[in-house]
This record gives sequence, C-alpha cells and structure tokens, in this order.
Amino acid sequence: QAFKVHKGMGLINHVFNADSLKKLYVSNLGIGHTRYSTSGISELQNCQPFVVETLHGKIAVAHNGELTNAVRLRRKLMRHGVGLSTSSDSELITQLLAFTPPLENDDTADWVARIKNLMNETPTSYSLLIMHKDIIYAVRDPYGNRPLCIGRLIPVGDMNGKGKDNSETEGWVVSSESCSFLSIGAEYYREVLPGEIVKISRYDVQTLDVVPRPEGDPSAFCIFEYVYFARPDSIFEGQMVYSVRRRCGQQLAIEAPVEADLVSTVPESATPAALGYAQKCGLPYVEVLCKNRYVGRTFIQPNMRLRQLGVAKKFGVLSDNFKGKRVVIIDDSIVRGNTISPIIKLLRESGAKEVHIRVASPPIRFPCYMGINIPTKEELIANRPEFHDLANYIGADSVVYLSVEGLVSSVQESIKARKENENSLKTQKSRVGKIGHCTACLTGEYPVELEW
Amino acid sequence: QAFKVHKGMGLINHVFNADSLKKLYVSNLGIGHTRYSTSGISELQNCQPFVVETLHGKIAVAHNGELTNAVRLRRKLMRHGVGLSTSSDSELITQLLAFTPPLENDDTADWVARIKNLMNETPTSYSLLIMHKDIIYAVRDPYGNRPLCIGRLIPVGDMNGKGKDNSETEGWVVSSESCSFLSIGAEYYREVLPGEIVKISRYDVQTLDVVPRPEGDPSAFCIFEYVYFARPDSIFEGQMVYSVRRRCGQQLAIEAPVEADLVSTVPESATPAALGYAQKCGLPYVEVLCKNRYVGRTFIQPNMRLRQLGVAKKFGVLSDNFKGKRVVIIDDSIVRGNTISPIIKLLRESGAKEVHIRVASPPIRFPCYMGINIPTKEELIANRPEFHDLANYIGADSVVYLSVEGLVSSVQESIKARKENENSLKTQKSRVGKIGHCTACLTGEYPVELEW
Amino acid sequence: QAFKVHKGMGLINHVFNADSLKKLYVSNLGIGHTRYSTSGISELQNCQPFVVETLHGKIAVAHNGELTNAVRLRRKLMRHGVGLSTSSDSELITQLLAFTPPLENDDTADWVARIKNLMNETPTSYSLLIMHKDIIYAVRDPYGNRPLCIGRLIPVGDMNGKGKDNSETEGWVVSSESCSFLSIGAEYYREVLPGEIVKISRYDVQTLDVVPRPEGDPSAFCIFEYVYFARPDSIFEGQMVYSVRRRCGQQLAIEAPVEADLVSTVPESATPAALGYAQKCGLPYVEVLCKNRYVGRTFIQPNMRLRQLGVAKKFGVLSDNFKGKRVVIIDDSIVRGNTISPIIKLLRESGAKEVHIRVASPPIRFPCYMGINIPTKEELIANRPEFHDLANYIGADSVVYLSVEGLVSSVQESIKARKENENSLKTQKSRVGKIGHCTACLTGEYPVELEW
Amino acid sequence: QAFKVHKGMGLINHVFNADSLKKLYVSNLGIGHTRYSTSGISELQNCQPFVVETLHGKIAVAHNGELTNAVRLRRKLMRHGVGLSTSSDSELITQLLAFTPPLENDDTADWVARIKNLMNETPTSYSLLIMHKDIIYAVRDPYGNRPLCIGRLIPVGDMNGKGKDNSETEGWVVSSESCSFLSIGAEYYREVLPGEIVKISRYDVQTLDVVPRPEGDPSAFCIFEYVYFARPDSIFEGQMVYSVRRRCGQQLAIEAPVEADLVSTVPESATPAALGYAQKCGLPYVEVLCKNRYVGRTFIQPNMRLRQLGVAKKFGVLSDNFKGKRVVIIDDSIVRGNTISPIIKLLRESGAKEVHIRVASPPIRFPCYMGINIPTKEELIANRPEFHDLANYIGADSVVYLSVEGLVSSVQESIKARKENENSLKTQKSRVGKIGHCTACLTGEYPVELEW
Repeated sequence: QAFKVHKGMGLINHVFNADSLKKLYVSNLGIGHTRYSTSGISELQNCQPFVVETLHGKIAVAHNGELTNAVRLRRKLMRHGVGLSTSSDSELITQLLAFTPPLENDDTADWVARIKNLMNETPTSYSLLIMHKDIIYAVRDPYGNRPLCIGRLIPVGDMNGKGKDNSETEGWVVSSESCSFLSIGAEYYREVLPGEIVKISRYDVQTLDVVPRPEGDPSAFCIFEYVYFARPDSIFEGQMVYSVRRRCGQQLAIEAPVEADLVSTVPESATPAALGYAQKCGLPYVEVLCKNRYVGRTFIQPNMRLRQLGVAKKFGVLSDNFKGKRVVIIDDSIVRGNTISPIIKLLRESGAKEVHIRVASPPIRFPCYMGINIPTKEELIANRPEFHDLANYIGADSVVYLSVEGLVSSVQESIKARKENENSLKTQKSRVGKIGHCTACLTGEYPVELEW
Repeated sequence: QAFKVHKGMGLINHVFNADSLKKLYVSNLGIGHTRYSTSGISELQNCQPFVVETLHGKIAVAHNGELTNAVRLRRKLMRHGVGLSTSSDSELITQLLAFTPPLENDDTADWVARIKNLMNETPTSYSLLIMHKDIIYAVRDPYGNRPLCIGRLIPVGDMNGKGKDNSETEGWVVSSESCSFLSIGAEYYREVLPGEIVKISRYDVQTLDVVPRPEGDPSAFCIFEYVYFARPDSIFEGQMVYSVRRRCGQQLAIEAPVEADLVSTVPESATPAALGYAQKCGLPYVEVLCKNRYVGRTFIQPNMRLRQLGVAKKFGVLSDNFKGKRVVIIDDSIVRGNTISPIIKLLRESGAKEVHIRVASPPIRFPCYMGINIPTKEELIANRPEFHDLANYIGADSVVYLSVEGLVSSVQESIKARKENENSLKTQKSRVGKIGHCTACLTGEYPVELEW
Repeated sequence: QAFKVHKGMGLINHVFNADSLKKLYVSNLGIGHTRYSTSGISELQNCQPFVVETLHGKIAVAHNGELTNAVRLRRKLMRHGVGLSTSSDSELITQLLAFTPPLENDDTADWVARIKNLMNETPTSYSLLIMHKDIIYAVRDPYGNRPLCIGRLIPVGDMNGKGKDNSETEGWVVSSESCSFLSIGAEYYREVLPGEIVKISRYDVQTLDVVPRPEGDPSAFCIFEYVYFARPDSIFEGQMVYSVRRRCGQQLAIEAPVEADLVSTVPESATPAALGYAQKCGLPYVEVLCKNRYVGRTFIQPNMRLRQLGVAKKFGVLSDNFKGKRVVIIDDSIVRGNTISPIIKLLRESGAKEVHIRVASPPIRFPCYMGINIPTKEELIANRPEFHDLANYIGADSVVYLSVEGLVSSVQESIKARKENENSLKTQKSRVGKIGHCTACLTGEYPVELEW
Repeated sequence: QAFKVHKGMGLINHVFNADSLKKLYVSNLGIGHTRYSTSGISELQNCQPFVVETLHGKIAVAHNGELTNAVRLRRKLMRHGVGLSTSSDSELITQLLAFTPPLENDDTADWVARIKNLMNETPTSYSLLIMHKDIIYAVRDPYGNRPLCIGRLIPVGDMNGKGKDNSETEGWVVSSESCSFLSIGAEYYREVLPGEIVKISRYDVQTLDVVPRPEGDPSAFCIFEYVYFARPDSIFEGQMVYSVRRRCGQQLAIEAPVEADLVSTVPESATPAALGYAQKCGLPYVEVLCKNRYVGRTFIQPNMRLRQLGVAKKFGVLSDNFKGKRVVIIDDSIVRGNTISPIIKLLRESGAKEVHIRVASPPIRFPCYMGINIPTKEELIANRPEFHDLANYIGADSVVYLSVEGLVSSVQESIKARKENENSLKTQKSRVGKIGHCTACLTGEYPVELEW
C-alpha cells in the first residue's frame, strides 16, 4: 500500500508531464491538489497532499480551506510532542487524524471515528479528501464553507451510433468545482453536503454520517464563489454560477438604472452580469474593448503615458463602437480601485461621452479568515477616504454597487424556490438545515467565532 | 555603426527579457520581427531580421510575406557566386540588396536605387523594414498584399491636468498591425501605400517614391486579414476590422436567415459577426460556451469519449442558457471541419433543440503562395466530398457560408464610400490606383502570375 | 527566531546560487547538509536539514549516518500518535528530540537532556548538528562511527605584510571532513569525540558531556573512510588520509611483491598507495593512462567494440610509457570487478607484457547498515564464484588484496604510537576509551547488534 | 542531398543529446565542430559547420584556425556583392568556395580546383573539412599550422575469442587530435600533411594534391600544442605529446637544476615534465596538492583571506608530504603570473622550507594571429616590469624558464632522428619539405607576413 507521490511548483502541465504521469499511472485511485501560492509560503514542503505514515498505514490528505482555530490546535499538537514541519493548517489536520486518542488499544483503526473527532476539534473551513488503502473519504465542514462535489465517469457508447449509455458508472471523481468534470468525460452527480462524510470506493458512493452544526446555525457557503471565483459553468447548490451572475446584473438594473446608449463590460468576467443588465434596461450590449492576448511582463516603459495607461495596456479599443455615446460599464467587483480608473480614462480619450460604472457585487470591507486571499483592510477601496467620492476618484460619471440584500436574494432566489418545492415533498430537509451564506467579507459577520 | 542583434526562439517575453533588453537599450533606432514557425524550418538561422555587412556598411532587413518568384531569384544569386545559408525568401531580399550592380564604381551607396531595383526583380509579396545607419526604410510591395502602417509616439501631457499635447512627435513606429500602437503609447498615423518607399528618421517620415503596378492591375490586400488574422481593433484601408466583421455578420443575416431562438458563437473570434447577425435578425445574443482557460496539453486520455470530445474539451457548457432552444452558431471560418463538429455534438447533448451554423466568410479552396500558412488543398473541407452534404457531415441542422460577393462588398463598402468622397476632392487618387483585394484562397485568382 | 530554509536537488552551486544565498545572508549562524541520493528516495522532502517547530521553538537537524534500530523507533513514535512524513532516519531523530517526555511541565526546554535521551534511545550511527535559537549542538554517536570535526575561522592579517594573526578567532565551523576548511579560510581545530555533545556559540566551543559506550566496547570509526571515501588531505584521528593510504601501499608491497618493470595506477584515487608501493619495491612510478576529461554520457555506440571498451573509454593510453614492459597496477578497491577488467585488456592491447593487480584494501563482503551505500551481497565480487579465480576472470597475470590485518595496522600504527605517547602524559584517555574501527563490510563483525 | 544540421551553444552532451542524435542518425557521413567561445562573439550564428547552397549543391565547412589575410578577403567578397552575415573567417572560406570564378560555364563543379583556388588566396592558418554530397575533403594549410589527422574505424572481432581483426576497415574519421580516436573504437592512421588535400569516401582515403609552400619556407606547426593545448596521449608528427613534455622536463633539469628535497607539480598538466625533471635530477617525485573536485563558482567570500587565497582555494594541501622540505614545483607555463603566486604562499604557510619554480616552456611574449586565444601583450607577465624580478614578485626562492632552443630541440629531437632515418630510405621527403615550428608567441617570428 505504498502511495506514489508527485508534487511540484509551477504550472500543472509542467509538474504532471508525460514522465511523471507514467510513474503514477498503474493506480486506479488518487487525490491531487493545486493552489495559487503567494511567494512567501510557496515552498514545496507546503504542497499538498500531505502524506504521513501512521500505525494503521499511510494516509494522504488534500485540504481546501483555513481553520478558524488553527493557533489553538498547533499548540495542542506540540504540547503532545509532535514537531510540526510547516505553517500549514493542512498539516494540523493530517497530524490530528494520526494522533487521535485512544491509540494504545486502537488495533483496528476506525477512520470514521477519527474524522468525526477531527470535525469536533474544528468547525470550519475545510473540504477534505482523505485517502487510505483503497478508500477515499470526502468530507465537507458542517458549515459547508468551501465547495465540494462528486462527478460520475460515464462509459462511452459504442462507435456505431448507439450513443452514450448512462446506466453504467466507470468511476467517481470529486472536485471543488463541477466545471472540471466535462473535460474528463464525467458528469455532475451531486454536492457533498455540509458536515457530510462520504466514503468513495471503486464502484460505490456512500454517506457514512452527517455531522450537524450547532443548533440554529445556518450553513455558510462562501458567497464570493458566486460573485468572483468560480467558473460560470460551475454548479453550486443546484444552480449554475452564470445564472446567478446574470440575475445580479438584472437586480443591479433595478437598483441602479442609468440613462445611456449602450451597456458593456471589461472583458471578460462580468459579461453575464452585463448581458443581464442590458436586457433588463432594454439597452444594446456592445463590445468596447478587446483583450490584448499577447501582453506579458513588458520591460519597455519609455514614458509617463505608458505608466499612466497601466492596466489599459492590456486592451485594444474598439472606438468605432462607442464614439460619442454614453456607456455603462458593468464590473464584477472593485477591490482596490486601481484597475477601473485607467480604463475609464481610455474610454473617454477614445470618444466616450459619458462613462457610468455599475458593480455587480457589494463592496468588500473585511478580511477573510476562511481561506480566501483578500487584500488587507487598508488596501480595500471601500475602507479608504476616496470611497466617499468614488465616482470622482476613478473618473466615472457615476458608480453604484449592488446591495448586500440584492446579492443575497440573487443567490438564494432559486434555492428557496426549489427548497419550498422540496419541503412540500419532505426530502432531505433535516440533513441540510437552515440555508445561509458567508458574507463575512461584505458585512463582517463571520459564521463562527474566530479564535486566536 | 555596429548593429546589436538579439534573436531567439520561443515566446517574445522569454527572448526579450530584462537582460537582453538591457544590452539593446542604448539605441534609439531598431527593427524586430516575429513569426509563428512550423517546426521544420524553425531554425534560429532563419530568424529575422537578417543582418549582413556590405561594402557600404551593415544593413538589417525584416520581411513579412513570400516571394512569388523565389526559385528564379535563388538561382540567379547562386549563379553569381553567392552561397545561400537558408531557405528563406528574406535572405534572398537581403542578398539582392547587397548585390545590386553596378558595384565597382558604386562608392556612395544609393539605397533607394537598390530598393527600387529589388522591387523590379519581384512583384509581391513583401512588406519590408530596412535599417542602414540611422535610417529605416519602410517598403510595401506594389500590390500591397501584406499590411504595413506607421504610428506616432506622442508626448505625455504634464500631470497637472493639461492633458496630452498632440502637437509634438516623440518618434515613429512601424508595424504590420495598428493594434500594437496603443500598448506602447503611440497613435495610428497612416498606412504605407502599395509600392511606397518611406524613409523614416528620428523626427521625419518622408515618401521617397511610389513604385506603380503594371497598367490596369488593382491592388491586392489580403482579404483574409479582415476575416481571420487581424485583431479586431486594427485599422486597414481606413476601417476598423471589427466593423468589417460585424458587417459580414449583417450581410450573412441577409443572405442566410434562419428560424431560431438565439444567436451565439464559439468564443471568441466570431463575436462581432454574431452580434451583427443577431441585431440584423432581431434575435437575442446569448453565450452558450465559456472558455476553459486552463486547458493545455493534456496527457490524460483514459477513454474513447475523451478522444471523441476533443475540441469541446476546451469549453465549459452554459447549458441553462440554451436548453430546449434553437441555436444559430456564427463561426468565422471552417477550414478543416473537425473543430465545429464536436461542438455541435456537445450542444445537442447539453439540450439544444436545433443547431444551425452560419459562417461569416466563404469557403477556402486554394493554397496561398503569398505568405499565409493554409492547409493543403486536400485537407480543406471545401475540396472534399463531404462538403456536398456538409450539414450532415458536421451534424448541424443547416450550414450556410457567406458569399464571396457578400464578403467583398462588406470589405469594400466603406472604402468605396470614402473613395468617392476623396475623388470629388481629387486627393491621392493617382498614387493608390484601382482598389482590389486578394481573394486567391477563395477563388483561385492570384494577383500575379506564379513562377516556379 | 524564524529559520530561513533553502533546499534543493542537484548540484550545490545550482541550489545555492547568488539569489538563494542573498536571502540567507543576514544570518551569522547556519547548518547545511548534502548527500548523494539514489533515485528512489531522492525526494526533496527527504532533504536535510529537517526543521520542526516544537513547544520550545524551532529546531533544525542535520544528520550523517543510519540508525541501527530505526524500525523500532518508527513504531514507537507512531504508537505515540506522530504521523511520519518520510522514510528518513533523520526525521526520527528530529521527532524524538521534539517528543522527549516529560513535556507537560517542561516549560524551560532542557535540550542537553533531550539530546542525551536521544543518545540513550539509539547507539549508532549518527553525527548531528542541531540548531536552536543562537546555539548549534554538535553530537557524535558513542561509537564515533561517522566523522565530525571542528574548524576555526581565522582573521586576515593586514595587507602590509604583517601576515596572519592566529591569536584571534572569527567564528567556528563544523564538518564531516576537515578538507573543507581550507577553501573557506578556516583551519582544523579538533575532532568531536565519540559520544561528545559540543555546544557552539558565536565565540565559544564547549563540551557539555561525553556519553560513554557500554563497558568494554571499542570505538568504531568507519575504516572505509580511510580506504575510499575521504579526500586525501582530510584528517581523522590525528592523521592525514593520504599518509594512511601510502602506508597501505607500502604494506601491500611487503605482503605481495611482484617482479615487474614499473608501478602505476588507474587515475587517480590510488596514487598515494601506488607511490608507497613503488617506493617500497624500488620500482619506478610511471603514468600509463590519462583521464579523458570530456567524457560524459555518450549516446554514440555504433559497435560491439565500444561496448566492450566500456570503462576504458574514459581514459587515454600513454602507450609509449609501457610498451613491452611488466606493469603493476595499484587499485584502491575492487567492488564489482567490472571496472578493472577492460582496463587490463586495454593495457595489453596497447603493448603491456604483463599486468599485475595489487589492491590496497581487503575485499568487501558484507553490507553496511551504518550509512554507507554498498552494493548487495550478491553483486560484490568477493561473494561470487569468479572470486576463486579472480586473476583469470579479470584477465590479470596476478591479483592480490591487502589483508585485513595489514589495513588495520596501517590505519592504527600512528594512532597507537601517539596514544602511547599521550598515555605517558595521561591526557584524555578516559574520555575516548578503547580505540577500534568498524570493519563490518570486510569482516561481518558489526560494532553493535543490529535490530530489525 | 539535404544536409541535416544541428548546432547549439553549451556543452556537447547537452547539444548532442539523445533527441538531436536520433534525428542525425540515418546518415553515414558527417562533420562537426566545437570551440571555446569568448562571450562577445559566441552567437549561435558563428557556430560551425557553415552550410551554404551553391549552384552545384550544398557544402558544409568546418574550420580550425584563423586567416592571416582575412581583412583583404572580406573586402574582396563584399566588392563582388556578397553580403556577409558574420565576422567569422570560416564564412569567408565558405563563400570563397561558393564564389570561385569562372562560374557561368562551370556546369560540373570542380571542387578540387575550388579548394586549390582558396589555398592560393590565403596561406595559413586552416585545417578544413569540406562535405559535399557523399565526399569529405580534409585540407591542411601549406604551413601545417593547425593539426589534422585521420583515424580508421576497425571492426570488432567476433565474441568467441578470435580477437580483433585489423585487416578490414569499417570507416574513416578525421580529427584535430588523435586522442579522440580511442574512445570511439578507431585507431590512429596518419596525419594530413601540410598543404595536402585528402578525399575521403566510405571506404577510401586518397591524396588529391599537396599544395607547396613558397620556396624555402619551413613548415610551421604550432609549438604550443605540444606545450599546453594537446592532450598528452595525442600524436603529432609521429611522437606522443606526453613524451615531448617529459623531454622538456629532462631538458629543464639540465638547464636549471636546483638543490632540493623533492620535485612536485600543480595538478595536473605538468606531471610528465615533473616526472622527467625528477628522474633526471635523481630527486623523489611527491604530491603536495590534491585537487578540490567540487569547487565551482563560489559566492561565499566573507573575508580578505579568501580573496587572497584565490586560486589556492581549488586545492587541498598534503602538508605531511613536504613539511620542512625544499620543494621544486614544475609548471607547464606561466601566462599572467597570478596563478602560481598564491600556490607558493600556500605551500610556505603549510610548512615548505623553500619553493623553487621551474617552467617547462619559455615565456610567452607575443600575440597569436593564427587561432590561439592568448592574452594581450600587456597582460603577459613576460612583458611587464615585474618580470625582471619574477621570483620576488611571485614569492619563490627561484624561478627559471626553459629556453626556446631547449623547447625546440625537445620537440624536434625524435622527428629529426626519424627523418634522417627516412632520408636514408628516400621516402616522402619532397612532400613535407623543411621541418620547422611556429614559435611566434615566444619569439615574435611569424611564419608568414601578416596582412591588415
């Protein structure tokens, strides 16, 4: 039962090249992990999955999230005599799984008991894959803060036209985002529920337990996945991210309409919101910028103008499309405020008569302690004096954000509709509990108390 | 007057990194070249610019295009005793410039005479930059087959709000495509005319001569630049490529309308045509696919389904947007026919009721001998038996191409309008001559006779 | 007290390049580790030093050696609930230092007690550097199996001719081999004694304790360091390795003389033994081969002859020096027997009349469990049937090995002389105990009982 | 007849790796070139072989040497209208071969005539390989300044003990140095004579012509190949380089004996001279330094002492071998004088009582214009004021160089002996002419007049 481990820093296709994949290929079971790492802590040593040998064999652990009580857990482990090799929360999880007492008489390891023990030690946030022998355990924290979903590898229909045959299953895959399934020939099966421990074997997916939240606590899936991080074709809580973003655009049109000639966006994450806004307003959707695909780190900076352009350098201007017109630009979020400003300048210099900004999310004001890398409070535009006269600061004719209530209702609208429907059918209600979302970065209301 | 030369294979930002740029920086004059090279002839030796020492100093030559009489010119040079190091047309041009007789009494090199001599030896296709001492000569062949345009580096206005001051010029830049100017703080100045020899010095742009075409021959700018190659924000012959593409979509709507629920496109080159088509038809423009940004060479191919998906693997499916609907997909060109087929299949499997294909250009049927890399005649879908039942072959409900006439009129519409306007003002008419476009790959009619 | 850690695989000068050194430079304290790693276990994760955080701060540990009771220690740690990340003995040492009970009331970490505790848990083999805050502990196991010595960084005399001033010390360095000191401007200070725990601070070297061996056990420094591994200018136990090797050559001349015309060697590790042998025999020392410096992995293998030549390909032949002569080749050891055979063939084909082999060490017959990478028992030439007719097998006219007694006496001769001298002076005797050497690979007699 | 070309910068084993060799392997004919390139002109473009297409097919040219009339030849070619791509003499040779008139009626290329034409244009220095279709021409300039020799690939005897069969030939190889033959299973066949044009085909080596020197001029093989450049096992003019170097050491012992206890050398090029010196003087040969194999570019330079040690850092000191003794160090040449000085210092500090330097070659005083990279006149120690008190400058007790006459006689001794022998047999005398050597760097007497 020796695990084969391959890790590396850099692009996935460089790390997992033909050579390294050949070494891993004889297996029919595996877990992987990728993350964007800021330089300071990007050591190979911190790369997941973490593999350790325990008295009951090797386990490998992949973790998405950040523990809200990590400091206390570190001290607890070190007090027990465990030397910790990294600053990673994921090592804590791995050692907690190895360490769980009572050990002396624990001759047949009860991994479910160990996982539940871990879940009692820390409330959030973690989505986990734990591999042991020929089993993978998929675990989501009781608040469901980080996503996790299951896909089904489906067999190929024979080539003579009978088409695919969905009745069989060739295997199971687990991922943070469902959008990854299509490219490997799998289809979306279902989400792992908040608090659920799922056991996955070669042909079977089985719920072992669902650890509940404290009485009255709603679930707390990260609302920023909808707004910004997830790919538009991903499905969370039964709805496509693209549809949520279009609804945000529609809601924004209701909250903040504007007299204008056309609606556009900065390519390309806010396109669904822009199309939603345009449709709701009855204005034409028009492209005003095209991406400069070949821009990279450029060393040529001969004059101040170039430095002024900055971000705008990344785009080409389709000036014929908006010369002399009033333009509404839909953006998905304004974090620091230094991206949109030169774009507005560029549009004006290329002939736009007016430039109005509508942001399809509320302003970010608070740090995230549950795994999302957000700038410091001081860097966030919404916490700075300029925010009080933002339109002037960024050079727009007007700027309006979507309200928190507008965002939450755009996200929860179809979930609630479906839930009411389900309620009448009495399905699964008890398992999921009260539906909520983590809006901590917008409101400062964290789903659990933070420990230091 | 030693030129500093730096060449390399790979991405521009790797070849021209901080180190190599530092070495080149003391200059205020330079030329560069980049091209996509198929592996066979991608030796560093073939990399441009070509630099040779002549009796009258070093010249450096950058060339875009392909000579239609290269074979005869090679033999002529070798007969004179010149050993040729590469298979490149550009070396021929360079040696022809070095070699032009009479040399013995040519004590003061007359480079304009040498350039005109070269232009008499070969009619097309070439756009050239020739650097000698502190002068750059920009040359376009008499047919104007390849693009070439001039930009002006403009000074920055001071920072206290006076804005930019366009009355001065900080320098000149020359490029195949005007879209490159914005990112370096330059603005579009004008095209080099077909047959024109332009002398560019530090502060001055000066026409030295315009070499005419044979009596009656129209110009022959490559129409495929409009259809496919150029970036949408580039300007050729006074018009933005994006506008031409939108007109092609509108023309296509007139030529080949269809009963449907929505218009979409495969991201992302055909978006302007799709928006033009949608607007003309009065149908909504909707996104059906999103790009899978992280796809690379993938080594994981566990089953036949994956191989079947092929191209579609590159996309995510926004199925909620088109489930149960009739979809029109606008494509910019169908070259081999193996790209669109799996996309249609993917849309149907994800719920599309009908899938109609409209192509915003005519079918390619003939090879290009003027510098564009086109598949062999046998590979082109329009030359294959399947073409006669193309809709069935690719799995579409219908498929219609834009007509050659429709394309030409979409391209020439505004040029003609402007020209009539200019004619009434009697400007420049004699210099440009009769306007035409090279449609050789669509019609087999080459602008000059091909020599072998 | 954050340690800066930099590790890598490959050549030291690639891993510790200008960039990585710049990051480490602000420190005035550090430890490092390098080892040749066979591919199987060459993961970066196994790279030393191991750094872990404990309740009393971070420690970094570098280890040379291999624990004879590693299996038992692994199980002990895992039973306590520690998940082990590597298969490395050095991780065991690190976790044992972190774990040592009693921990709950251990508010001021007593690192010497922890180190002694570790030494009680495992008898050999380890030479250790342990860094904690601003202290480095240098530790050698009670048997002194692996080497460890201390050097003194000496200040530079001023440039006007006063020469160096040895009275001051600029700092301390610790190394396995003293030969490394010269190249950094340090001088040999002394060995760490078997069982000694030395505390090294900025200006001070201090013995904290000397942990004794079990009553009656002699020390067991690895005799193969003298024979093969160490650089000739290194000093162990008060003598230069070069001198030991020359004595081995002299002893070999006594044990196995031969009628011949000249003595030579295969460049270049056996040169001291060859010079010793030649001098003792009164025969001239002559070069017969020169190194082919540029040989690397060669892909050109057109014929069987080349494969036959094999190793010989690495040398040039100085045939004029030995044509028609009887040659004695001194080798330092014959491990597998496949290196010397083609050399003998090459010498014969180039004109040698006779070729006699004399090996300046006894045959290796047993595996090493104390850190030296020796081929498996089956691969060792001395355990194979061919050994009984070795001269014939390798194509020599005769072949004789040095006896174990001859080797041991060559090694211990000057140690004993010095010790008798010291005994009369009553210095340090009690601390070092009975002098012995580990000859396990030659005799099968291991210094401690091996645990599985 | 397309040549396959592969070039690169860096180590041979990196450039010619498994991939690139696979592409070249189907051939049974080829030429290659390697050179150490100073950074300034190390562009890939200057990498040989040069390949050009001529009216009579492609030729590939590899060149060792430097033309003494390059400037005039460049101008001649450019006047004819050839643009030159590089600053390399080798391109001149290639274009001269392509260009040789009369060309118009030259329908069947006469390559021998072209080669002789080239040899008439330039006297020295060049050893050439010219490949055309299935023939390789090997050419050495009339003065024989650069070496060139031919080897024979010999077949393998069958494996059942019959041994090698020298009666057949499997192919031919040509090289600057014969030492390269052994490692590919070839044996030395003969030198290419000064002025000789040799035609090499699959099974045949044939002299086409021998171009004579001007009446009375002796040959001028570079004497520095014997002293410094060549590998000791190479054969030039019928003698092994090692033997010449040992004779130089013996001659030096006659010219400059010294009262001392031992003779040694700086590893390792001067070992043959040191053994010759020791033998002639009756002093023991002893090692005093060992090479520090792992030294590379080191970034650690904490103090002045290290900078003072400099070169010495590359060695380990075997101090036990020379403590209290008078040492003679034999060096092969002192070029700048900054290498030996710290070594002398190191030996003294490690206990040497006296250090005498004997140099087995005369001082270098003049630049080389025939292909050898020698420091500028100002950098050469022999042209500097310090030379008049060199022993004091480098810190030696005495220093003596070999005389020019002593070097020449050591080199020519056995050539003359053999020649007298041959003369009595009347062989080949007329072809080689008067034997001489180029001692320009030692005496300033160049074999031909230098043109500028």
